[in-house]
Parts: sequence; structure tokens; C-alpha cells
Amino acid sequence: MASVTIVGASGYLGAELIRILVNHPKVDDIIPSSQHHANKPVSSLHRNLYHVFNRNFEYLDIAKIDSDMAFFASPPGDWLKEVPGLLERGVKVITLGGKFRIKDARIDRDVYGGYENPALLGERVYGLPELFRNEIKRARFVTNPGCYPTSVILGVAPLIKERVDLKKIVVTSISGSSGAGSSPSEFLHHPEMGGNVKPYNVLNHRHRPEMESILGEMAKREVGISFTPMVGDFVRGILSNITIFSESPANVHKTYEEFYRDEFFVRVLEDGPEVLPNVRNILCTNFCDVKPLIDKNSGRIQIITAIDNITKGGSGQAVQNMNIMLGFDEKSGLNLIAGHP
Amino acid sequence: MASVTIVGASGYLGAELIRILVNHPKVDDIIPSSQHHANKPVSSLHRNLYHVFNRNFEYLDIAKIDSDMAFFASPPGDWLKEVPGLLERGVKVITLGGKFRIKDARIDRDVYGGYENPALLGERVYGLPELFRNEIKRARFVTNPGCYPTSVILGVAPLIKERVDLKKIVVTSISGSSGAGSSPSEFLHHPEMGGNVKPYNVLNHRHRPEMESILGEMAKREVGISFTPMVGDFVRGILSNITIFSESPANVHKTYEEFYRDEFFVRVLEDGPEVLPNVRNILCTNFCDVKPLIDKNSGRIQIITAIDNITKGGSGQAVQNMNIMLGFDEKSGLNLIAGHP
Amino acid sequence: MASVTIVGASGYLGAELIRILVNHPKVDDIIPSSQHHANKPVSSLHRNLYHVFNRNFEYLDIAKIDSDMAFFASPPGDWLKEVPGLLERGVKVITLGGKFRIKDARIDRDVYGGYENPALLGERVYGLPELFRNEIKRARFVTNPGCYPTSVILGVAPLIKERVDLKKIVVTSISGSSGAGSSPSEFLHHPEMGGNVKPYNVLNHRHRPEMESILGEMAKREVGISFTPMVGDFVRGILSNITIFSESPANVHKTYEEFYRDEFFVRVLEDGPEVLPNVRNILCTNFCDVKPLIDKNSGRIQIITAIDNITKGGSGQAVQNMNIMLGFDEKSGLNLIAGHP
Amino acid sequence: MASVTIVGASGYLGAELIRILVNHPKVDDIIPSSQHHANKPVSSLHRNLYHVFNRNFEYLDIAKIDSDMAFFASPPGDWLKEVPGLLERGVKVITLGGKFRIKDARIDRDVYGGYENPALLGERVYGLPELFRNEIKRARFVTNPGCYPTSVILGVAPLIKERVDLKKIVVTSISGSSGAGSSPSEFLHHPEMGGNVKPYNVLNHRHRPEMESILGEMAKREVGISFTPMVGDFVRGILSNITIFSESPANVHKTYEEFYRDEFFVRVLEDGPEVLPNVRNILCTNFCDVKPLIDKNSGRIQIITAIDNITKGGSGQAVQNMNIMLGFDEKSGLNLIAGHP
Repeated sequence: MASVTIVGASGYLGAELIRILVNHPKVDDIIPSSQHHANKPVSSLHRNLYHVFNRNFEYLDIAKIDSDMAFFASPPGDWLKEVPGLLERGVKVITLGGKFRIKDARIDRDVYGGYENPALLGERVYGLPELFRNEIKRARFVTNPGCYPTSVILGVAPLIKERVDLKKIVVTSISGSSGAGSSPSEFLHHPEMGGNVKPYNVLNHRHRPEMESILGEMAKREVGISFTPMVGDFVRGILSNITIFSESPANVHKTYEEFYRDEFFVRVLEDGPEVLPNVRNILCTNFCDVKPLIDKNSGRIQIITAIDNITKGGSGQAVQNMNIMLGFDEKSGLNLIAGHP
Repeated sequence: MASVTIVGASGYLGAELIRILVNHPKVDDIIPSSQHHANKPVSSLHRNLYHVFNRNFEYLDIAKIDSDMAFFASPPGDWLKEVPGLLERGVKVITLGGKFRIKDARIDRDVYGGYENPALLGERVYGLPELFRNEIKRARFVTNPGCYPTSVILGVAPLIKERVDLKKIVVTSISGSSGAGSSPSEFLHHPEMGGNVKPYNVLNHRHRPEMESILGEMAKREVGISFTPMVGDFVRGILSNITIFSESPANVHKTYEEFYRDEFFVRVLEDGPEVLPNVRNILCTNFCDVKPLIDKNSGRIQIITAIDNITKGGSGQAVQNMNIMLGFDEKSGLNLIAGHP
Repeated sequence: MASVTIVGASGYLGAELIRILVNHPKVDDIIPSSQHHANKPVSSLHRNLYHVFNRNFEYLDIAKIDSDMAFFASPPGDWLKEVPGLLERGVKVITLGGKFRIKDARIDRDVYGGYENPALLGERVYGLPELFRNEIKRARFVTNPGCYPTSVILGVAPLIKERVDLKKIVVTSISGSSGAGSSPSEFLHHPEMGGNVKPYNVLNHRHRPEMESILGEMAKREVGISFTPMVGDFVRGILSNITIFSESPANVHKTYEEFYRDEFFVRVLEDGPEVLPNVRNILCTNFCDVKPLIDKNSGRIQIITAIDNITKGGSGQAVQNMNIMLGFDEKSGLNLIAGHP
Repeated sequence: MASVTIVGASGYLGAELIRILVNHPKVDDIIPSSQHHANKPVSSLHRNLYHVFNRNFEYLDIAKIDSDMAFFASPPGDWLKEVPGLLERGVKVITLGGKFRIKDARIDRDVYGGYENPALLGERVYGLPELFRNEIKRARFVTNPGCYPTSVILGVAPLIKERVDLKKIVVTSISGSSGAGSSPSEFLHHPEMGGNVKPYNVLNHRHRPEMESILGEMAKREVGISFTPMVGDFVRGILSNITIFSESPANVHKTYEEFYRDEFFVRVLEDGPEVLPNVRNILCTNFCDVKPLIDKNSGRIQIITAIDNITKGGSGQAVQNMNIMLGFDEKSGLNLIAGHP
């Protein structure tokens, strides 16, 4: 049995970690931490947890965490400096923020700034289990992928060894509004967002370097992505539409089925243009639905993926990583199924 | 032709006033004022007005307004003290905030506090044209009704002379999220409001005294309303469900048809239980759809009404009042029709 | 371990039964039946179950079902005639349709028509575990409550022994669109329902007699309910607003807390007017959130409840009933927690 | 003053034509025709028109139409054969269905099949006023563009003379649910569509040949479009995200501003990446909002456009065409402004 500390438990990713861990058969202690909300019942903020998780937020000295696992669900900040100490003391660490996801120190600095630590950056493992399971197994420090990168990298990965043009990948992603977190803003004020679909950060979303960097490393060639994120009028989920040009598109469906044959959480949909992913089929689950298509006329491969940004794109994947790092069954606590409808 | 000044033009009611007045055949000057956003293009905030209304917000000395009509679309504040001066100088005034709507000075003070002025309160006319047209015609100072009160008072008014129990009226109203204005809040943060329906202020919404006061004056007997407001996952509109107990419910449909026979903006729906109001049929229009029903078994009269909270429940009605006060055709500028769908 | 047959597994209630039972620790065989969709993969209709439940719909001779438990998730029909035979052969039966929920044969016939069987009607137990747990424990044949009745009866039950006016209960319920089932209709065509809120069946919804009958039996006095159902722009959930007049409203919050003290699935929210139910907190779960309030001025007790119409208002409650009938832990398989957000 | 006949007035495009024409200063007779709904009040189907348009649907002999203008808002059918006769008798015709939009007879036949008439196809003018105003002015027979093509062609047109790769255009469009018309379907059943985003017809949407054909003609070179349509959880509007690769992207913003300088209905948004189109700003209006962007690193030009699929993408544009064909002010009846919010 494992004990777990959640730093930044007052946000949406924190709420989702608790939601999952409460039913996790191998976790017997969940310590929810929040400096801002210390001593308030967790369920006073996360009303879904009322009668389900009866603890208060705690004010924590991060340096003194002594759980088996620490999740950092808060944005990158000074607390990152405590990570080396925690690792030394045997606490395994998963961060859900963006810092250190990108291995190239220069890009990491450009995108995220803040605390530098080459040793830590060198040690970090990118926590996408379907692609880096072995590294995660041996890791003490895992950076959980971003939500958009999860949906795009899982969609593109089976093709990086194929003869496709990785420099002109075009991605349009529609996300639910929860992706921006729990702080109210004019952009996500309901009267502005209801019945709407709104592009944002179209030229410079910071998840683009993450995608290009991870895929580039895997492919060992340059990857260029035109990335357009949008928010749709729904709360959870990301649907990514990925276009890749190819001189000789092969039978991509078979390629994808084989690539993900042993993966429980990546569901390659049945062949044929009728069956397509959507965000409701994977709502509140750790699944990534993937559909590759070929347009023979245009020499285009199109891949559509769907994940829940908070689960597979966040806390679900973090628990999946924890399971691997602590030697549990990778699916523990993640037997989450969307409703129909 | 009339000139119009809008104080507080940066909010949703201000935007709607401009949207309507831009097409008004009798208005040739619209001065949009906002202290906070002075000198910014109006269309930088109200993107709907891009290329349609090309003025900047102005910083205004309220005391010096010299338009024919001044709309105060901002919340009650110190500017109220300038109203008497404006009236004296011949500027007619319509306020869209709550202050002075309730004739009983004590209740007005309890609910809204702030500036007191018995003479002004005595002069004010409650701007519900279907019920107080003659008073409005002669008025210099009109307080535009609240959105919920508009939907409830128009629903109940035809019955106040009937033998019904006005002390046990039960109202549940579902409003779009725009009713709370343009300031972001946790309550209306899209991730919290999308796919949801949320009651709020259930025991003490300040629109309840307004309904009770206006209906009570008309009926000359005590009116008691159990009022439950909710926000639904839509942006504009209010649907009110009104239950009134009656010993001998008469043919209410005919009563309503006769009561509103000459009213263009109140549409009494066809008889029969199948045809019911909804908020899409009156979206962005000045209509109030009304449906009275009788349940003979239970001695209950049920009235369902639908308005757009921003138009008939706000700026549309304000323009309707302006038309009456300035002697224009009451429908001028208000030929707004919802789309289907 | 138990085996379970689901008749009518192609609908939304069938999908939800499978979603829950797939993770149920005491169920090892789930037989999904559908005459119309026989031999198609269940997951071709219920895309949420892809890779999770890999069986085909089966064409079933109902008379020959030999599972421990049979759920009838289809609308009332001729199959009802097979129930006595199944019971005799030791198959326990839970029906999710309306037939036989109302004990008064005359009302049952008026509302549902069809097959009559006084013995079966006499034997049936109304499957609301919080109120009829002991009867359910001994039952072979349970009629699962309707979704609206679940939300209303649980809201009113703690008051039936109090001095309140049960003949003038006023209920407005807002339901998600899934309540009407999976058959497309103009009423629920997305262009007609998106961004809308629509009342329907306002005078004669067939769930009203069910509420009045069950509450009347419990209270041993006449119960009269003014019931207005509406559909809001969300998929799952019911929020019910219940108004009850009372001469001397007591401390209802304490009354409710005590009444539901030992109930896991009924969560009485904290005292005070700020904390109110909404449909997202209980989404896809078996919880019923309940909030009682007193308006001392008006002598009104107001109760707001929220359930998921498909789970606590349908298949979740059915599994809760199954657990009781088969001697399992009542919560087995029902550790479902809504996400936040 | 003109008289107008609408064939197929019972659908969404028919409703929108009436909504606009009712307020049109130059139209004094609107004849709504529907074989299926003949003799029913138009407002019994289009509830928005209650008390606004008090005519019944008429059963019409199409050959005998003698209005100044006939709109065919119904899907392509046998009635097309009557068009030559109407034209000969001086009735001008605008069709809103797809037939004859594509000038290449072979493609037109492949995509739409049905009635062939080379003379009619030769005569037809493609009704995109911003690009073909002069032809429309002289036309008797105009085929109104499809909704997706309107949003894409207006987005790409300013670039066709530039050095850009027109063979690898990538388009993802998110449409409101009204695009598929008023017939209920499982795909658009609210429980399936609410809170969702769903791609469909991803490889073979019939609007793709229309875009490629019109743009190809204008550019006099081959145009290839990867087109992915999706439906989002909103009712009206299309947001199109268009990616075009270019060796030397120039100052596209200026190019667009100049191209559309004299166009009232195409609003090129202010320069800078923050100001982006969305579907609410143009809701129920005839505007097309356009935003061109350059990503210098990737050599990508990105254009985002937004229209209302029913107005600028359908009936609004049809009225715009009518105004041009009949010599009215092009903006007559089209002073429609979206609300904020």
C-alpha cells in the first residue's frame, strides 16, 4: 500500500487525482495540500467529493513530504527546488506542470523560464507510458505530459518511422473549457463561452514546442507542427484533428492497430470512415481513442484522436505513471468508463 | 430625431442598447460612456459591433449630459445624485439598475441602500409598458424593471383581479448566464456552469420584493411569492414557471388573450397543453411569450413565460420605454425576430 | 458470484447497467439482449464500452432466462407476461419501466395500460432502497422507480410525518435530455434543444401519479403535486425544486440529516443557503444530493434535490436493488464519483 | 416593391428567409410554400414567427410561380426542371441546394446526380457577391453557395494570386448542428450531441469539390483541400481554420484588408494574434469575420473565418443576391447584428 501527497490539490487536476485515488486499491493515504485553502474541507471546493473524501486541505512544508509518491498538480513555481531533496529522501515525484517536460534546456527555459537544474532535467522521464514505459519504470522523477501533447503525440507516434512529411503536420484541437484551470477569466466567462467555439494562442501555444520536441526525439528528424487550439462549449475532453502529408500512404489502420496492440488505454477504432472519435466516449476516463484515415487522392493521412484532458491528459495518466513507478498493475484505479450517453 | 447617452455602455445592457439603437429610425446620435474603458473603441469590447458602430467609449461628466435621453445601464451608484439635475435640464432618464424600482422607501432602502431622494422616488414610473403605458408617456424618469420581475409580473398581471390566492405564488425561473453581467466569477466560470443547472440566492433574491411590491400595488392586496432562480447552460433568456392556487379557475386562456389583445410584444400562445414557451423562440427579441394553463384537478393555474433577459428584460424594454416617452412608435427599432433554429 | 441478463440492453438504461456491472466485483456474467440489434457488438452502439465489454447483443427467449438476476430495461411490453414464470424458476427480476410501480391497480391501468396481473402487482416491491430496504431484501420482483419520482420522493419523504401541507406540493424539475431515451425526435433534435430550456407534458406527466401514490401510501394521507418537467441543455441529471407550505416549519435541516444519517447515497448538503445541489456534482453517480431550506416569512419549506436520471434515477438504483436482493454489499459496483469539473 | 416565393419554406433556410424578408423594406409579398405542411400556419412550425408572420404554408404549382423572385430552399429535386420555364416567364431564381453550383458537369453529376441541363448549368452564376457581384447583377439564375464553401472561399480568395501552395490547403471546420437541417437523426439527437464535438464525412464531404472547383476557377490552377467538418455543441455558426503553406508569406493582413476594403459583410479583424473570430460575434447575421495570420517560422499562413451557416452561409446571402439581382441596396433587410453576449 502506498501513501500519496498532492501538492496543489485545490485545482482541477488535484480534484481528479483524489477522485481516482479514493478508489485505488493500493493507495491508503491521500494527503491533499493547498496553501491557499488550508484547513478547509476538500469537499467544500470539490463538491463531487462530499461524503466521499472527508479530509481538509493541509498547509505543507514541501521539503518534509514523506509519502511514497508526491504529485505536483500546481503550476511551476519555487517548490520545484525541493524536488531534488525529495528524490534523495526516497519520495518519487510526478509533476503535472510544464517545466522540464522539454529535454532541450534552451527551449525549456524559453517556454517556461524559472528554476534551472540540468541534473534534474537530465534525469526526468517524459511520462507517456505507451511510448516510454521502460524509462518510467525506472524513474524517480516523471514529468506528466501536457493535455494537447498527449492527444497529438499518441496520434502521430505510429507514423514517425513511415515515409511521411513530419515538417508540415497540421493540427487543430478542440478542447473543453477545463483545460485552462479553475481561475475565472473573461475568456471563459460563461456568457462569452456558451454556444461558442473560440480559437486562442493560435501562433504560440506553449504545448507546440513540447509536441515537436518529443516527436523529434523519437523520429530523430525535425518535426514541424502548425497547431491551432480552440475551446468548445463543453467542459472536458480534447479532440485533435491531425493532417500529415505522405507520398505513399500505406495501410495506416493496420499500422496503428499493431502499434497499440498491447495498450489498454489507447483504443484504435474500427476501420472505415464512419466510426470516428468524439469526446463523450472517453469522458472522465483514461482512454485515448485514435482513428487513422487515408485520403488516397490527396496523399493525406488524417488522424483524429480524443482524450479527456483532465484524465488521460492529466491526472489519469499521472496515476498510470504512478502505477508503473510503484510496481502496481498499470490499470489500478483506472477502470473508469464513460457513460452512454 | 433624438440623441441618446448611455452611461455604463461597457456592460451587456449597454451593448444591447447600442445594438438596438444603431438600427433605430429616430435616433441619430448614440454617445457611449464608460469611465473604465474611455477612449477604447466600443467594438473592442463588444465584438458584435465591429464595423457597425465605430465610436470610442467616452469619459463623461454626467451632470453635463445634454442628450434627449439618458440610459443608466450601470449598477446603482453615486451618479444617481445627478438625476434630478438632468431632469431639470430637460434630459429624460431611464435607469436599468434596481434602485427606486420599489415605491416603498423602506423596502427600497433595505434592498438597495445608497442614495435616498423621496421626491425622485415619488416621481419615478415603473417602466413596464404593457401595464403602465400612460404613466410612462408622461414620465421624465423611468426605472426599467428587473429581468425576473418582467417575466413574472407579465405572467401574473391578468389574474390579479381574479379569485386566486396571491399569497402562495410559487415561481421557479431558469435564467441564462448573462443575467449576472459581464464580470467573471467562479459561479459562472464555464467549467463550473457548462452542462449544469444551478440554483442560487434561493431565499433572498432581491427581485422578489420588486415582484411582490409591483403586483401588490396593482392588486391592492398582499402578494407572497416563493421565488427560486436558477442559471441554466444557455446565455440569454428566462423561462419562468408560475404556480397559482385558485378555488375556481376560469377560462384563463381567454382571460390572457383579452388582457394582452392589443399588446404586440406579449404573445399569448395558442390554447392547449402542447404549445409551450421556450427561450429560443424569443432570443434577442423584445417579445414575452406567455402560456396560461389550468389543472382542474388540483385547482392550480400554471403560467409559463419566456423573455430574453437582456432585451425585453432589459435594454429592449428600455428602448420601448424611450419610444413611449419621446412620442415615437412604440415598436421603433424593436423589429427583432429570433432565428429558427 | 452472480450472472445477470439485461433485456433491452440497447437503450441508455441498458448501457448504464453494463457500464456499472462490468466493474462489479460480484458479477461474472453479463448477458446483453436486444431483439433489434442481435449479433451486433454491444460496443458498436455503446461506443463508451469499446474494448471494455466485448460481447454481442443476443436474441433471447425471455422465458428461458436462467441468470440469477434479470433486468428489464425496455419499455413495458408483452415480455411482462414472462415475469411470473421467471420468478417461479428462481430468477429475480427488476423492471426499469413504469408498469406495476403504482400499487393501485386502477391508476396503474390508467397510466400504463397493458398486461394485468393482480398477484404480480401485489408482490411487487417499489425499489427505493432508502425507504423500502427491508421489503427489497425479501423481494423477488422489484419495480425500479422513475427518475423524477426518485428525485421528488427522496426530497419529500423526511417531511411526511411533519405538519406540512402535502396537498399543495409544487415541483419544477429540470432534466437532461437523456431522460426521453435514445430514439431521435424533433423535440430533442439538437438544433431545437441546444441553448434552450423546454417545458413539456406540464399537466399530465405520468410520473406524477407515481409520486403521489408512493408518498400517499407512506404518509397515509392524500398527496397532491403540481409537477412541471422541463428539459435543459444538458444530457444527464435532474434538478428538482420542491415547495411545501407549512404552518410551523421546524428545523428541517436537522430533520433531513437524521432521516438520511445512515444512507450513503443520499447526501444532505451542509446547512445554510449558499450550498445548493446541482447536476454536475452527481453526474454519472448513484448519489442524490438534497438540500432543505426554510423561508420563515412565507411559511415555505423548499427542498432542492439532484440525481443523475440514468444512474440513481435508473440503472444505478437498479444495481443498488440487485445488491440488496442478492445479499451483496449495497454499494458494490457503485463507487462512482463525478469529476470536478 | 417585390414579391417573393419560397419553395421549401418549412426548413431552416426557409424560416430564415422569412425572418429576414419580413423586415425587408422592398419586399411586400412573401409566399411560403410547403407541400408537406400546406395550410398549416407557418408560425406553428417556426415558433419564432408567431405574431410576426401570419400566413399559412401553401401548396404550390411551381410552374405557375409569378413572383419577382423564387427561392428554392428545398433539397435538389424534380422541381429543378421547372426552373427554365420560370426564367423564361421572367421569374428570377435563386437555389439554395447544391445542384448546379459546380460548373464542371461531370463533377456536378458525380456529387449531386439527378436532373441534367447543360444550358442551365452554363447560365448559372455562383452567388458569392463579394467575388462575383457583376455576374450576379446580370443573372437570372443564381446558385447560392454552400455554408462551408462560403466560409472557406472567402477565407482563401485574397491569396489565390499570391505565391502559396494551393494544393495542400488544410481546413478544419466546426459547424453548429443546424447545418444538417431539421430532420431528427441519431447523430444529432441531443443526448448524443450535447457536450460533444463530432467529426463526420471526413474524407468525402460534398462541399469539398465545390470549394476546390470555385477556387480552382478563380486561381486558374489546381486546388487541393483536406477538409474535415465537425459538429460542435452549438446551433448556428461555422468556424473554419484554414492552413496554407507559402514560401514567402507577405503581409497578409494588409492583403486581406485591401481585398475586402469595400465589402460591408466581410469584416477583416484587427491585426495581431489576440483578436480572433468566433461564432457568437456573427450569430444570426450576414457577416463573415476573417482573420489572416502568419507563422514566419513554419511558412504557414493561417486564416480563421466565422459565419452563421444559416445566414451568410445560406438565406442571408440569398437575400444579398436577391438585392443585387433586383437592383436594391445590397444591404437591404440585412442590418442584422449579433447580441453581446
